[in-house]
Amino acid sequence: MMPSFGLPHKRAWASLFSQLLRPSGLVCIREVHFHSQGTRDLSPQQMVIREKILDMVVGCFKRHGAKRLDTPAFELKEMLTEKYGEDSGLIYDLKDQGGELLSLRYDLTVPFARYLAMNKVKRMKRYHVGKVWRRESPTIVQGRYREFCQCDFDIAGQFDPMIPDAECLKIMCEILSGLQLGDFLIKVNDRRILDGMLAVCGVPESKFHAICSSIDKLDKVSWNDVRHEMVAKKGLAPEVADRIGDYVQCHGGVSLIEEMFQDSRLSQNKQALEGLGDVKLLFEYLTLFGIAEKISFDLSLARGLDYYTGVIYEAVLLQTPAQAEESLNVGSVAAGGRYDGLVGMFDPKGHKVPCVGLSIGVERIFAIVEQRIKTSGEKIRTTETQVFVATPQKNFLHERLKLISELWDAGIKAELLYKNNPKLLTQLHYCEHMGIPLVVIIGEQELKEGVIKLRSVASREEVAIKRENLVAEIQKRLSES
Amino acid sequence: MMPSFGLPHKRAWASLFSQLLRPSGLVCIREVHFHSQGTRDLSPQQMVIREKILDMVVGCFKRHGAKRLDTPAFELKEMLTEKYGEDSGLIYDLKDQGGELLSLRYDLTVPFARYLAMNKVKRMKRYHVGKVWRRESPTIVQGRYREFCQCDFDIAGQFDPMIPDAECLKIMCEILSGLQLGDFLIKVNDRRILDGMLAVCGVPESKFHAICSSIDKLDKVSWNDVRHEMVAKKGLAPEVADRIGDYVQCHGGVSLIEEMFQDSRLSQNKQALEGLGDVKLLFEYLTLFGIAEKISFDLSLARGLDYYTGVIYEAVLLQTPAQAEESLNVGSVAAGGRYDGLVGMFDPKGHKVPCVGLSIGVERIFAIVEQRIKTSGEKIRTTETQVFVATPQKNFLHERLKLISELWDAGIKAELLYKNNPKLLTQLHYCEHMGIPLVVIIGEQELKEGVIKLRSVASREEVAIKRENLVAEIQKRLSES
Repeated sequence: MMPSFGLPHKRAWASLFSQLLRPSGLVCIREVHFHSQGTRDLSPQQMVIREKILDMVVGCFKRHGAKRLDTPAFELKEMLTEKYGEDSGLIYDLKDQGGELLSLRYDLTVPFARYLAMNKVKRMKRYHVGKVWRRESPTIVQGRYREFCQCDFDIAGQFDPMIPDAECLKIMCEILSGLQLGDFLIKVNDRRILDGMLAVCGVPESKFHAICSSIDKLDKVSWNDVRHEMVAKKGLAPEVADRIGDYVQCHGGVSLIEEMFQDSRLSQNKQALEGLGDVKLLFEYLTLFGIAEKISFDLSLARGLDYYTGVIYEAVLLQTPAQAEESLNVGSVAAGGRYDGLVGMFDPKGHKVPCVGLSIGVERIFAIVEQRIKTSGEKIRTTETQVFVATPQKNFLHERLKLISELWDAGIKAELLYKNNPKLLTQLHYCEHMGIPLVVIIGEQELKEGVIKLRSVASREEVAIKRENLVAEIQKRLSES
Repeated sequence: MMPSFGLPHKRAWASLFSQLLRPSGLVCIREVHFHSQGTRDLSPQQMVIREKILDMVVGCFKRHGAKRLDTPAFELKEMLTEKYGEDSGLIYDLKDQGGELLSLRYDLTVPFARYLAMNKVKRMKRYHVGKVWRRESPTIVQGRYREFCQCDFDIAGQFDPMIPDAECLKIMCEILSGLQLGDFLIKVNDRRILDGMLAVCGVPESKFHAICSSIDKLDKVSWNDVRHEMVAKKGLAPEVADRIGDYVQCHGGVSLIEEMFQDSRLSQNKQALEGLGDVKLLFEYLTLFGIAEKISFDLSLARGLDYYTGVIYEAVLLQTPAQAEESLNVGSVAAGGRYDGLVGMFDPKGHKVPCVGLSIGVERIFAIVEQRIKTSGEKIRTTETQVFVATPQKNFLHERLKLISELWDAGIKAELLYKNNPKLLTQLHYCEHMGIPLVVIIGEQELKEGVIKLRSVASREEVAIKRENLVAEIQKRLSES
């Protein structure tokens, strides 16, 4: 049976069909009666992995002096129009229930620009971790969902050129290295170089957009296929396509920038020269940051979103994927660029605030790490409980409740079974199953002697401890472990 | 000009008008051109306060052994219908863009129940921190927004009676004490006692709902007003209303429970007796937890939501609000109860999973704490930057970039100004303004001698430190402070 995704959007359908036709393409229809397509619950295991990764990402953003901001899940619909080019069809609208027309946010960048304009903020270094929503075809195998988390870092303000841009690339390197995802490469280009290149190759301005989106496919399909699309579908003259081909197959470091400065055609274009000058300066700073060897100047990098105006970048993992990770097909894991015009679009007087930023593709990173943990068989604790309160005797609920209350009040993470008379074995099994390290046991004998038995789940050793010393002893043991 | 809230919902309008008419009732229309009504951006200052409060709340949930869960922002519309009674009109629907009919989640309880049923989970202790959306009239003075954060803790599973229920109340006490919001009281009642009381007073079952919603107003208006509403608007016989009045004006501790057990009318009702039995057992456990004096058995507590089936509770702050806090009018800051039927509504075979839980009204708590900080004049740092990299000289950008890169790589939180040649005074002012404790200064002299000047912003003391010892020295200073 054909699942009804209800996605009239062409791109989405195309992508869906390619999924259905691929032998490994698995479209998830399992949860159709409970769940909106393309969304999912996150289990406690997944939440533990996510929180670890997000802590690391946010830690890096804070290391670079960013403040945290939050914006509403929905914006006035008009705030989002004309910001995303052909992707606008993927925006979720809210039903008109009387009042304003609203849409769910599509990214965290446009709300940030709206915030700056609305509050007349001229300078800000902020990060934002939050969900965004896109009506993509739910190709779950690739880790692409309709609801997903974004982690953005942006620097707004008029500064000397390329210093904040270089910091953004440094941040991407720190995060990707820190997460130990294997070797990676960050492709860098500049929208002005791209536009200049298209102009000098003889592409009419009206076709810039369409040709850019063809170029953007070069990381997935061969130049021949892209060339075919340009000529056959987008009506480009073959010799124009060939000229583009000469450029977009180039990538390298500082020497390629120098080469392009000397290029007979490109050096005639003012925009391209500006872009090349900035990219050259950028590489100077990247060298000082010790990350130049991670960066590749790549003339094929286009990036889809409309709002970029200068430097653009995208990080890809280079590692040959392990057997189990192969199906993830992760591609880009972080991206960003300069968008100097976006804030002005929200300002009644058009005042501009230049911005540059990056977004970490955390969903893909989550998927990789989840897959690795699954493969390794590593067990993830989903609770942090330190002590379990048990009894071998019947009618000891009152004593257990008094005891656990003491532990909670001392800040100790503690659990018990919600039963009047649980079996001791059941209680001990629970501790082993949940990875709880310590058990306190109270029974008639202990009550009489004013002691509590403290048991290590791992070693099964038990010692009797005076009731009044119990909290201190537990805290000592926990601090040692 | 009358702002267009577009809220045809009667209750919402009534509430809006009462706001407009109140002398202190300030309806926010400032941001009408940028923002959806009733939503707002959260500034870095607000985010710092929120994160501290949420850390404390989540810390308590973890202390009680809860796992973290997350669910999508929107659910299939049908999942939310018939769960919220008369509040259903406040649910946000998504536009039908082809495909499923979706709605934004209204709380975190219904998605949790859906999760349990969908995954056939019979037992789970989970917490969930996330946003929910309600089309309320945006009475911003009361801290009521259309988008707000909820912090929920719930225990699902068939257990011995009142043990998990007592733990929920213990958690509410721990959180409210821990946040130091002043004295508080938790009102407790039981849906079965409420229904039994209405029955024995002579209320026809068809009017239970309407009468409950009148009773629910008793924390805001007098009994006389509520009585008038019951008789004049809801068509209750005066003597029936008076009988209800005798009950709902009662609140107290264990002795009141005993009194109700002896009550000639109530003791004839099976449901009421069941509820009274459970509430009595609950108080036994609350005494063992040392929190019985914080709890008041209150026959006027009704709680609006349809899904509650047993014990219900609501925490209110008792402190006379300070001058500046008065306008906040905070009311209830935490609430919850038992809902044994909700999971079964999602299960094709109707299998029940009994649940009990609580929700912390963090938005109100945020508002109180924000107001206190504002009144106290306390300055909140919105960044965590530890070290600023400065220079007194021109053309030292390269040296600054190399230096800051070293600090970042050592995990030190560091910033610099994004200028080629900033003035030293500007750099030092920035540190004072941002509360950055340390400055490293590099100039020609330092470069020649292989040292760096380390300056304390507070004491203005400067010492020269060998470049190779800089990171270690900074780490030492930071660990001491």
